Amino acid sequence: MSGFSARSDFSRTPNPLAEALSRHRARGLPLLDLTESNPTRAGLPAPEEALLAPPGACGYTPEALGLPSARGALAAHLTARGAAVAPEHLVLTASTSEAYGWLFKLLCEPGDNVLVPAPSYPLFEHLARLEGVEVKPYRLPRAHGFGLDVDEVEAARDARTRAVLVVNPGNPTGHYLHEGELAALADACARHGLALVSDEVFSDYAWDAEPARVATVAGRALPALTFALSGLSKVAGLPGLKLGWMHVGGPASLRDEALARLEWLTDTYLPVGTPVQLALPALLTQHVPRFQAAVLERVRGNRRRLFQARPADATWDVVPAHGGWSAVLRIPREPGEEATCLALLDAGVLVQPGFFYDFGGGAFLVLSLLPQPEVFAAAVDVLARVLSPSAG
Amino acid sequence: MSGFSARSDFSRTPNPLAEALSRHRARGLPLLDLTESNPTRAGLPAPEEALLAPPGACGYTPEALGLPSARGALAAHLTARGAAVAPEHLVLTASTSEAYGWLFKLLCEPGDNVLVPAPSYPLFEHLARLEGVEVKPYRLPRAHGFGLDVDEVEAARDARTRAVLVVNPGNPTGHYLHEGELAALADACARHGLALVSDEVFSDYAWDAEPARVATVAGRALPALTFALSGLSKVAGLPGLKLGWMHVGGPASLRDEALARLEWLTDTYLPVGTPVQLALPALLTQHVPRFQAAVLERVRGNRRRLFQARPADATWDVVPAHGGWSAVLRIPREPGEEATCLALLDAGVLVQPGFFYDFGGGAFLVLSLLPQPEVFAAAVDVLARVLSPSAG
Repeated sequence: MSGFSARSDFSRTPNPLAEALSRHRARGLPLLDLTESNPTRAGLPAPEEALLAPPGACGYTPEALGLPSARGALAAHLTARGAAVAPEHLVLTASTSEAYGWLFKLLCEPGDNVLVPAPSYPLFEHLARLEGVEVKPYRLPRAHGFGLDVDEVEAARDARTRAVLVVNPGNPTGHYLHEGELAALADACARHGLALVSDEVFSDYAWDAEPARVATVAGRALPALTFALSGLSKVAGLPGLKLGWMHVGGPASLRDEALARLEWLTDTYLPVGTPVQLALPALLTQHVPRFQAAVLERVRGNRRRLFQARPADATWDVVPAHGGWSAVLRIPREPGEEATCLALLDAGVLVQPGFFYDFGGGAFLVLSLLPQPEVFAAAVDVLARVLSPSAG
Repeated sequence: MSGFSARSDFSRTPNPLAEALSRHRARGLPLLDLTESNPTRAGLPAPEEALLAPPGACGYTPEALGLPSARGALAAHLTARGAAVAPEHLVLTASTSEAYGWLFKLLCEPGDNVLVPAPSYPLFEHLARLEGVEVKPYRLPRAHGFGLDVDEVEAARDARTRAVLVVNPGNPTGHYLHEGELAALADACARHGLALVSDEVFSDYAWDAEPARVATVAGRALPALTFALSGLSKVAGLPGLKLGWMHVGGPASLRDEALARLEWLTDTYLPVGTPVQLALPALLTQHVPRFQAAVLERVRGNRRRLFQARPADATWDVVPAHGGWSAVLRIPREPGEEATCLALLDAGVLVQPGFFYDFGGGAFLVLSLLPQPEVFAAAVDVLARVLSPSAG
């Protein structure tokens, strides 16, 4: 009898909400899906397909960190957005998931740990576990608007901690890191010899202006080794093209050693396709501005619709936030997240419960702000009705 | 001071041959490169670039194991070549390197080991080490034509062994697994609870007919859990498109558990691009037959040129083989592999030393059979001259 590893032994038991959704779909019932976050299914601008087959697309020049032409175009793009970065400090990846896998390999022995924010998108635990690495959560205090509190990071750290992950802005909480928080966090990382890994995939989607907002850790003079992660999935709404990147920064000796090791590591996989690397310059200049403008209009509009649907006497609130593709609702603790999600599904609206993101200290729902306006407006009308006290 | 992991601490010291090559290139000296194995640089047929941007290429349907349309086309392709496989037992990957990473995660705890053939292409040690897994070599005996000897596998096994890797045909040794060897190996794997991982990227490139040859372990009724790996890099000469695959086989309960775990695991990464998945059916039918016919003509012709260049009184031999893209030469132990490679480089010809592939029990050189005929013919004339006793 062959055996399998413990790290690949994940629970495959569906939760009650997933089972109810399967039954709902099997019965062919209508559904307004407020969990849809696939940008290619939301009626947003797409690039010309011909862009994906540029001259030379069938060729192959193995370059561990990415083609110089692609890294150069990316550096120019990021620099134009305010982060002065050099192409030689950029590493192309097939996705941010892959970038996390590489960073866990680069920084951690099996049994080491990394600190991850809670609440957050529930991907880090899986990615870390598959590399033999543990995650330890640090709380984003609700009292602090789900922003970063460096004391929570310090409290979560132990002797085997190798890195602190931040999501900027938080997913789904939509809070950006502020200058003072970054300074305190980078100091703590430098003091304890930890790397700072910043997930910035939603960073381009700020809804408003904020003083002292940190859009990216890339191109900053920070005392800790830093990795800033992003990719075409969110920046261009093209998750199917499989192109992400990271910027490596911090003290020169640490940065250069990290890059040298990453070059060796990426040479083992050479994971990024040639066509998308050759297409990157055109995608960044011709497609990204149009796509991002459309997304900002969409999420701002849907957020406005959400506030409009909320009655004055509502027992639920929209949690304040500043960017991203999601909205978080605080709802009454009774009947709670799962029961509310099931009641909404009965009424034909699908949302995510807060426990999916490891919220705590209350009950929460998470909504995608990406759906088409007419879908979103119809869904939040149902939502307001189901959540109103008289409907209880 | 941030630290880095031991698993990412690989030697970056260039060997004398690499240093000599750098000097040779820096001086702008001419070079006939018999290490070139990049199929996109050898004047072989390429597909129309437009094939790479099929309708829907900018879309995204997350399917952990790969799009059903792509898996279906691949199953039809493999079945037409003689391996009766079902689409639901195929898993798409971005590359065989990635497939190895997944299999090491699936099968091994940190500290476990896998058995790898020696000689072979030196990738397994790096891939395994990055997953916290060790490799233990088993010898392919030269007396057996570098074919598989199950006693060598048994001797290499210990209590922490989780899988046996075979490369079929061997790279660079060009020997296919035979029916009797496979039966003995699969029995041993079943008896000890080991998975059998078969790397078949060169399997389509047989130079001759052989009785009892095993082209693939896919679609066979074997008593052990089996994984058969291949991909577009070698099958279609398109390494830049980043599409590989594995077939999962063996006893149904093991196979289905492996597939269920792999589905969860691949869902964490979703690494395969949409455009290449949509392009796969056309690539398999329109491009692959033309490409493979051209490669076979090329490698057969170059192998013939190699024999023609060998003088009757040569102190070196072409090692017998049956497929692949390489040729192996046995050379005198003195002056040995490195000195011979350096002498050849001085004469303007680049080849690989046997130690790069962990040969043993003699001195060997490895040549790519892919270069353009005129390059190859000129190079082997130089090679024959440098290797001749009177030139010593």
